[in-house]
Amino acid sequence: MLEEIPDIVIGRLPIYLRALTNMAVNGEKLTTSSHELGERLGISSAQIRKDLSHFGEFGKQGTGYHINYLIEQLRQILHLDREWPVALIGAGHIGHALASYNGFQHRGFRIAWLFDNDPAKVGQMVGGLPIQPITEMVETLNREKTQMVVLAVPAAAAQEIADQLAQTYIRAILNYAPVHLNVPPHIHVRHNDPVIQMQRMTFYLDTSLAVGSR
Amino acid sequence: MLEEIPDIVIGRLPIYLRALTNMAVNGEKLTTSSHELGERLGISSAQIRKDLSHFGEFGKQGTGYHINYLIEQLRQILHLDREWPVALIGAGHIGHALASYNGFQHRGFRIAWLFDNDPAKVGQMVGGLPIQPITEMVETLNREKTQMVVLAVPAAAAQEIADQLAQTYIRAILNYAPVHLNVPPHIHVRHNDPVIQMQRMTFYLDTSLAVGSR
Repeated sequence: MLEEIPDIVIGRLPIYLRALTNMAVNGEKLTTSSHELGERLGISSAQIRKDLSHFGEFGKQGTGYHINYLIEQLRQILHLDREWPVALIGAGHIGHALASYNGFQHRGFRIAWLFDNDPAKVGQMVGGLPIQPITEMVETLNREKTQMVVLAVPAAAAQEIADQLAQTYIRAILNYAPVHLNVPPHIHVRHNDPVIQMQRMTFYLDTSLAVGSR
Repeated sequence: MLEEIPDIVIGRLPIYLRALTNMAVNGEKLTTSSHELGERLGISSAQIRKDLSHFGEFGKQGTGYHINYLIEQLRQILHLDREWPVALIGAGHIGHALASYNGFQHRGFRIAWLFDNDPAKVGQMVGGLPIQPITEMVETLNREKTQMVVLAVPAAAAQEIADQLAQTYIRAILNYAPVHLNVPPHIHVRHNDPVIQMQRMTFYLDTSLAVGSR
């Protein structure tokens, strides 16, 4: 049984996985080090070693990490050694973009269902999937024991849908609605908030060039 | 002159700012503590105190942080005490969603220009903005001394546009294209990658329920 791992540690593992996968795809070499990985990611090598030590011994002093082995281990730890079917809720602009997004494949996910509350949209195909009525959502999710959804509905509709999701097997919500969701503690929510990413970069902008009003 | 601050520290400040702003909007109280903030965010209180200590002394032993004061300080540190005009490149589904997104206001940003390479789209209005031809991008960005763009173009087009952006004042790119961008070191890139957020949550899913193939 694993100790309780801080969520912030879990949150760094996909970042490591993506960097390692890029290394493997480029295929220049078979091993890497916490130092090299840290340089790429702007994370200290000590942090990387500490994060990985929660899960075992993956590297060797001197030779470092075998890239493909560490990829496989991280995929197992994160339960990405299978494909998770995901329901996409909301067939607006974000929903269309995600349904057609080709970045899910081989990374653990497949958009399997698409729901919308607009009767005019029901039956239309998006990214190879038919839009189903939102009234069928709870029944479908329960039947399929779906555990993850992407929520791409207007802010005003998001909480009501989150309340419905709480009655299903759902344990993870990627929320694109610009609103905080109240959910039971067994449901994890990540908020896709572009402004947080943009605010992380304003620190580096040149304020002497700024034309914006203070 | 500030010491060199690790980017990972800068990256947590917007998260603190969002949580503090939510506290201020709810308006229950005037002060908070690193402990309370940490509980909300799943970050240790020691980490929060250490992060903030890079920039000064913001709290008092016993009384904690004045919420509005700390908000104001974080906004100054991150240069969010003004409004940054942002160019949005790509008027596809993501571009439409972002141009109509109401979450930028009061958080430091305004989508000021919208570019696309499709002549059929040029001149159309999206979220109150006319779509301009991509051929005018470099000239417009240079004239306006724009420093930030959101890149929402297909993967195949992203690098070519990034190369053009490198000839302008641009210092920050929020990249929605599922591809790594090669840019000069003075340009910061953040990748909006929904899969990273989804992979952070699969750790918590119930693998005994999984119907996906291994």
